[in-house]
Amino acid sequence: MIEVIFLGTSSMFPTEKRAHSSIFIRDGPENILFDCGESCQRQMRIAGISPMKVNRIFISHWHGDHALGLSGLIQSMAANKRSEKLQVYGPKGTEKFMYHLLRSFSFDMRFKIEVNEITPKGKSHRIVDEDAFAVEAFPLRHIIPCCGYSFIEKGKRKIDIEYVKKQIGITQHPILGDLQRGKNITLNGKKVLASKATFTTPDKKLVYIADTSYFKGIEKFAKDADILISEATYASDVGGRAEEYSHLTAADSAKIAKDAGVKNLILTHFSQRYTSLKPIEDDAKKIFPHVALANDFDKFVIA
Amino acid sequence: MIEVIFLGTSSMFPTEKRAHSSIFIRDGPENILFDCGESCQRQMRIAGISPMKVNRIFISHWHGDHALGLSGLIQSMAANKRSEKLQVYGPKGTEKFMYHLLRSFSFDMRFKIEVNEITPKGKSHRIVDEDAFAVEAFPLRHIIPCCGYSFIEKGKRKIDIEYVKKQIGITQHPILGDLQRGKNITLNGKKVLASKATFTTPDKKLVYIADTSYFKGIEKFAKDADILISEATYASDVGGRAEEYSHLTAADSAKIAKDAGVKNLILTHFSQRYTSLKPIEDDAKKIFPHVALANDFDKFVIA
Repeated sequence: MIEVIFLGTSSMFPTEKRAHSSIFIRDGPENILFDCGESCQRQMRIAGISPMKVNRIFISHWHGDHALGLSGLIQSMAANKRSEKLQVYGPKGTEKFMYHLLRSFSFDMRFKIEVNEITPKGKSHRIVDEDAFAVEAFPLRHIIPCCGYSFIEKGKRKIDIEYVKKQIGITQHPILGDLQRGKNITLNGKKVLASKATFTTPDKKLVYIADTSYFKGIEKFAKDADILISEATYASDVGGRAEEYSHLTAADSAKIAKDAGVKNLILTHFSQRYTSLKPIEDDAKKIFPHVALANDFDKFVIA
Repeated sequence: MIEVIFLGTSSMFPTEKRAHSSIFIRDGPENILFDCGESCQRQMRIAGISPMKVNRIFISHWHGDHALGLSGLIQSMAANKRSEKLQVYGPKGTEKFMYHLLRSFSFDMRFKIEVNEITPKGKSHRIVDEDAFAVEAFPLRHIIPCCGYSFIEKGKRKIDIEYVKKQIGITQHPILGDLQRGKNITLNGKKVLASKATFTTPDKKLVYIADTSYFKGIEKFAKDADILISEATYASDVGGRAEEYSHLTAADSAKIAKDAGVKNLILTHFSQRYTSLKPIEDDAKKIFPHVALANDFDKFVIA
């Protein structure tokens, strides 16, 4: 089960109701962040999430509204005597920005930070590949280098109990553990092939499209996502403003969702100009009906 | 009139109710900050204060909880096309920290930032001296270099109208403007000395004691303040913890207030361990009765 909690849903300027961009993702023991805007640590605290458990932070790009919560989070981790390594991922420039960030205030560094600068070109690149999950990065087109990310909970091999019962007459036995690990087994002289006695549940996929202009082919990065989280800074009421600032409108995001065949679309990163999000919601729903608009502390689940 | 608005009143770890340290001070056209903790710009927005108007920021020390709001504030100023110079003041290390801070994220720098590194030794140093106000810095004793600051609204020269009437029989005349500027005047052959016909209202003084151990003589920096704002991270219930982490207890702050003869004491920078501040309030009131405990967005005025 992938849990998603929005910690900040504003764009460049935070508002009373919306902090800067930050999305918390929990999948089993894995706690990660997609972006880490200013006041991320306080938002986590309000949401009842321990900042200490975060092991990987993926920065889409180095505009302050997506990254300025990193320093405070790192300071609090250090003050809390963290010893586990923290992994930070981000586009071209990440090493330089992290170098300066870690020298921009005074704290006792007590744990290792591994900085991973990634430069995905044209297609999605798998940058984390664990047994239970993977993360992929893909290139977006913003004013500065920017990545989108996909979090993929890998499908699990399950035993087809009916099939096994038919073959060897049992439904419980320690040897079935081997089957689940994909090994063929033999019991009472009868062989059971893992390929026939097991099946794999489908992957679950969460895709995050951060700040970007719309471009041809962008939908391929969101293909078949269970949830697509997409920035939608503006509704269509702003004329050419979205292109000018390299952002998506709600209609752009809805078109991507539709073209990619995603199950659900969640919009975020709203301009401060909207005290009501109705124009954004209306524009999106005309094109793609399964849309939600994120508020700070909203929680979604891919079960 | 000096207005003081608390934007953050937590210590190292922010809480649901308390953001990191930041104090906004307005005196006529002057808008300044004493410290600038993370999420300062959002707190200003919630308080209805324009971040654009801030011209001077005084950092007590470079622990993150006192300085990590600077980047976001600077980014928003730049995004809002600010052109006025911003002055940043802080203790030894400020130039280095600012150098790295301004390189730790991507933004279009559109205005000048003047960094003033100050090293007050032993006594209070006047670091800003304008017609209407002054700011002094004084040394504190923390884990890293740390300054306290005083904001002084200078007394204004007023005309003693009764005296003038007695001398030259008038109460209104353009020439009285000269008197107010401290010049002697002559009207109808009669001379009036500014030194006799005018008086100066007392200065108003706001003193900020940031993170520090208690030390002998610290009270001299708060002498005769109208308001002393002092950190009081702990009550006396924490044993030697205050000394260990170089902080003041509520009793320390109250003793300073009493010894300095201040009019009012406001405590801030509370440890997250206190869900109720009663232990801090009780400890302080035993020693100094005119004490208030700051909450985020509390406003005080020296009229």
